[in-house]
Amino acid sequence: MKTYIGIDLGGTNVRVAKVTSDGEVLNQVKGPSYAMESAEVIMNNIIDLIKQIPAYEECYGIGIGVPGPVDTQRGVMVLSSNIPALKEYPIPAKLTREFNMPVYMDNDANVAGLAEALVGAGKGKGIVYYTTLSTGIGGALIINGKVLSGKHGHAGEIGNMIIDRNREKVSHLNAGCIECEASGPAITRKGNALLNASINHAGEVFELADNGNEMAEKIVDDACADLAVMYSLIAHVVDPDCFILGGGLMKSKDSFLPKVVEQFKTIVHEKMRDIDFIEAELEEPGIIGAAMLPISFGK
Amino acid sequence: MKTYIGIDLGGTNVRVAKVTSDGEVLNQVKGPSYAMESAEVIMNNIIDLIKQIPAYEECYGIGIGVPGPVDTQRGVMVLSSNIPALKEYPIPAKLTREFNMPVYMDNDANVAGLAEALVGAGKGKGIVYYTTLSTGIGGALIINGKVLSGKHGHAGEIGNMIIDRNREKVSHLNAGCIECEASGPAITRKGNALLNASINHAGEVFELADNGNEMAEKIVDDACADLAVMYSLIAHVVDPDCFILGGGLMKSKDSFLPKVVEQFKTIVHEKMRDIDFIEAELEEPGIIGAAMLPISFGK
Repeated sequence: MKTYIGIDLGGTNVRVAKVTSDGEVLNQVKGPSYAMESAEVIMNNIIDLIKQIPAYEECYGIGIGVPGPVDTQRGVMVLSSNIPALKEYPIPAKLTREFNMPVYMDNDANVAGLAEALVGAGKGKGIVYYTTLSTGIGGALIINGKVLSGKHGHAGEIGNMIIDRNREKVSHLNAGCIECEASGPAITRKGNALLNASINHAGEVFELADNGNEMAEKIVDDACADLAVMYSLIAHVVDPDCFILGGGLMKSKDSFLPKVVEQFKTIVHEKMRDIDFIEAELEEPGIIGAAMLPISFGK
Repeated sequence: MKTYIGIDLGGTNVRVAKVTSDGEVLNQVKGPSYAMESAEVIMNNIIDLIKQIPAYEECYGIGIGVPGPVDTQRGVMVLSSNIPALKEYPIPAKLTREFNMPVYMDNDANVAGLAEALVGAGKGKGIVYYTTLSTGIGGALIINGKVLSGKHGHAGEIGNMIIDRNREKVSHLNAGCIECEASGPAITRKGNALLNASINHAGEVFELADNGNEMAEKIVDDACADLAVMYSLIAHVVDPDCFILGGGLMKSKDSFLPKVVEQFKTIVHEKMRDIDFIEAELEEPGIIGAAMLPISFGK
């Protein structure tokens, strides 16, 4: 079976693994990402990690997931707030020269979505829309095993979608965007504002709602209505076979997902009511999805 | 040069043409569509029209654009309010048996978008998002020369996208959907409600606004804000190279398009502000786009 190198580059750590074409992680190494160092330091560290993988030379390609939008035509991150030196740095070109194999790069949400589409919850489905509900809200469109990254690598930047323009502006994102209204920090913010409690994370608000706290219930109901609008907006653009949902908020899925799906069905065309909402199933979608990038380009 | 048969099936007429691979219409015939007759009558009429095209046997494939959503996997219209007998009727299978060549079908907005993407205003661009602003508002996503039709043929049913949920429900579509707020009939409806005039079509409202009528200006400004939200929502999902705009409302483009683009730029990520808004340029996108369907599948 063909194997590929997957690299999951984050703001703190970088992980490198050899992964089979059906998504099995064979070997994995990990180190700090040296995010505040020069591009040379960061890249040499990644190269050293790859060389620690047994028989890395036999892999058919390298994929790398990075924490920022990627111009996949030019092979650069167009923004890189967590790893400043890598903004506009030609990472795939550098790795191709070093290892003489095809290298592809995309952002972390897109590679996670690709992993779920190819070997996870969306396996065998044609049009997969992956969303991550977490500190941020992001998305990825995977069509027949290939990610749509967009002109500027901004396809799937759904956190900035306006779901109700009549809200207050709370960040640099649009007023009334879904990330400002239904992400983990948004629910925590609303909890602290509306409840007589010091809320540390969204899970506490979901728990209070489950226990009958009316204000917490209202916060959760509002977030469900907002998420239903977001999913309906996406559905009218791409009409996917399924939505796959990942991210930390899914720990509380029983508290919100049924309501989201129920409301979604009321604001889409009748035929679309059967679009599945499926929980993400991979434990390491980042590194597996990175390794799937070369596969998605036929390597 | 390869040629293809394009069929533009509407609720009143059906047009059939031989079209070259670069979009030149060589021969065209036209007849009533017999929309209220049986499938057999409708199909035999189309078959007869095709046979009137000189050397139709030498074409490399047939494409047909129809006035309703198409399940492209099964090759049937899933809804067909204008031509009832063709709902769930296997049109491509019937034509393939008759002519022994590959036949593809998609809805009218999708084929128009395909034509603009391949040989019109979007020629040479990778990700094209086509919108028609008319009696209805519809869209089509074309990626590298191929239409995304969606699981139920509902990708691009953007008329039902909610751009402000705090509006009154005015049709079977969602309250606050873009088609209820910025289509031709929506602007006419608002004109009749707000202006001391009997408004027959949206163009009159645009003209009044251009001449300084304040109520008309407000209607137009509201529609521009609503359209800007719609384009920003689509942009965050697919990040296209360009939007291509067709449909009757474009006759008044000078009255609204600059405002839409200006406001769009304020509600998308900075990098996306350069997404082009281009006017559709083909006179017959329906029939040309139908003929392009086989090309988009490699025929």
